Amino acid sequence: MRTTTGWQATGPTTLRRTLLERRDLRPDDLAVRIEHCGVCHSDLHALNDHDQRVDAPLVPGHEFTGVVTETGPEVTAFTVGDRVAVGNIVDSCGVCAMCAAGQENFCHSFPTLTYGGTDRRDGSTTLGGFSREYVVRDRFAYPLPAGLDPAAAAPLLCAGVTVWEPLRALGVGPGSRVAVAGLGGLGHLAVKMAVALGATTTVISRTQEKRDDALRLGAHDLLDSTDTRQMAATRDTFDVVIDTISASHDLAPYLKVVAMDGTLSLLGYLGPVTVEAMDLLVGRKKLSSAGSGGRRSTAEMLQFCADNGIAADVEVLPSAQVETALDRLRRNDVRYRFVLDMSDLD
Amino acid sequence: MRTTTGWQATGPTTLRRTLLERRDLRPDDLAVRIEHCGVCHSDLHALNDHDQRVDAPLVPGHEFTGVVTETGPEVTAFTVGDRVAVGNIVDSCGVCAMCAAGQENFCHSFPTLTYGGTDRRDGSTTLGGFSREYVVRDRFAYPLPAGLDPAAAAPLLCAGVTVWEPLRALGVGPGSRVAVAGLGGLGHLAVKMAVALGATTTVISRTQEKRDDALRLGAHDLLDSTDTRQMAATRDTFDVVIDTISASHDLAPYLKVVAMDGTLSLLGYLGPVTVEAMDLLVGRKKLSSAGSGGRRSTAEMLQFCADNGIAADVEVLPSAQVETALDRLRRNDVRYRFVLDMSDLD
Repeated sequence: MRTTTGWQATGPTTLRRTLLERRDLRPDDLAVRIEHCGVCHSDLHALNDHDQRVDAPLVPGHEFTGVVTETGPEVTAFTVGDRVAVGNIVDSCGVCAMCAAGQENFCHSFPTLTYGGTDRRDGSTTLGGFSREYVVRDRFAYPLPAGLDPAAAAPLLCAGVTVWEPLRALGVGPGSRVAVAGLGGLGHLAVKMAVALGATTTVISRTQEKRDDALRLGAHDLLDSTDTRQMAATRDTFDVVIDTISASHDLAPYLKVVAMDGTLSLLGYLGPVTVEAMDLLVGRKKLSSAGSGGRRSTAEMLQFCADNGIAADVEVLPSAQVETALDRLRRNDVRYRFVLDMSDLD
Repeated sequence: MRTTTGWQATGPTTLRRTLLERRDLRPDDLAVRIEHCGVCHSDLHALNDHDQRVDAPLVPGHEFTGVVTETGPEVTAFTVGDRVAVGNIVDSCGVCAMCAAGQENFCHSFPTLTYGGTDRRDGSTTLGGFSREYVVRDRFAYPLPAGLDPAAAAPLLCAGVTVWEPLRALGVGPGSRVAVAGLGGLGHLAVKMAVALGATTTVISRTQEKRDDALRLGAHDLLDSTDTRQMAATRDTFDVVIDTISASHDLAPYLKVVAMDGTLSLLGYLGPVTVEAMDLLVGRKKLSSAGSGGRRSTAEMLQFCADNGIAADVEVLPSAQVETALDRLRRNDVRYRFVLDMSDLD
């Protein structure tokens, strides 16, 4: 085994620096020295749901960039020194219909998650990217295209591809009318990508306070969700509503602004949702969801971002401030993604 | 005013034959002698929800065919003796975005329903097609294409167009994989139309008993929804699931068999529905709904049915047996639609 250093949960809001074991390289493995790892909303859920007494150790972090330091003998696509990025899945069955379609994120036998997952070969629990080194199967590492800042690119690997897949699958392009509800980690990337895809893009927010930010990100307008007159005037308007609101919320007002045959894609809140069938019926509207990405679309998304100068707006903190980052994220005090700099782990 | 005869509700399961008033013809009105009127599941709901003490009189019936007996002076598209069909909406604002798009069924100021609606000009409550005569604005009457049997065509005007619109909007055609859940009034027409559109069509039913019927209707297979192994083997299979089950039911097993980026269209049960976002996320699946039809698609649907020899499988009863029809429909004892013959009202 190899050893590295990382941040392991000791409670729902606390982590301690500790030594971690990584597996010895398999023939198709890379060792990656992690430089930057984003802090995702799902890290909060994982910490909250983790039971120290019965669960395997928890090291969060599933959107990171770094440098290849070693490769297994069968690795041909990477060499030592390459900049790479890793997202929230690190393996899949490779043979089911979803894997065959390049949608490993929907693998029928469930993809192996970057942390809290079960390694398909040795059954161990995966430990995430809040650490200095990760060992990953080559298929689930992506070359970081030139021109992308490694810190700002890290959040593309989860937040980015999570909004990219529905935008692409729903055919967003020039002429599309897109609304992004909630302007956070996912939302701000959805705005940048939708604008770059050519869509007329509107932010829907509970406050006008984010108007300047929305316009700076490229949005054409901001719609105040608390202004019932404005919302009513926007009925049946958007071909796609990207809903990134992380708390449970009433979908009815957001369905109302979906255009006929359009889709509301629920990306932030992933629990049970209740809708009135009539809110779908009138206008034949669709409710959908998406999350994370397959290998092919992750690579496409990274190239699109490099080509269009898109990355996350990040606040970079030394990894020792991980608790501060999580605490501020919990209070939505971030514009728009924390990224931990792992160099303090040496 | 004109007078005619019809069946008016006296309680949730009882109707009595009575004289009804119809308006004098407006310049753009037709008088239609109703020959056949289908009995729709929503008639049961209307009867059940009707309060004799406070509500306006209720005469159900919103899918009928008949013959033009008189026309207003501005009517140019119809002449006396024409066979026509009328569905569940008889007017709309005509100016909103939905009306402009030919989707009068989604009119922003709500379409005028064929019964229980409020007439846009005189404010009266509309009385439905369980009667011998109806007076209708010409825009909401459709020429009955030659070759369609007037009795078997009547249910096309509600059940038919309700399944037609989602099949068309979801792009069903050759190569599509369609499942129809529930084989009743809507379901049996969905099977016929999906097959005629070129789709590989499967019926999903709680019992194998309907297998012969399903195959006779043109379906290629029947999937038993209670057979968990069969359902699991059919995961991610259907581009479109047309869900015509009229009772509230768990959507999870039906979402499981939707293919990636496919859609479950909820047509039978129109109350509140709860789904797990994860059941949509895995495979980016969509939940939608639809109901009734706009003028353009109603006319298209009628022509498609005439061209492809499609009509409802009906059991025709004298209108005096309306209570029997409703009672048997309540017990799902119909294959697949009751149609009332109004000639006994003379």
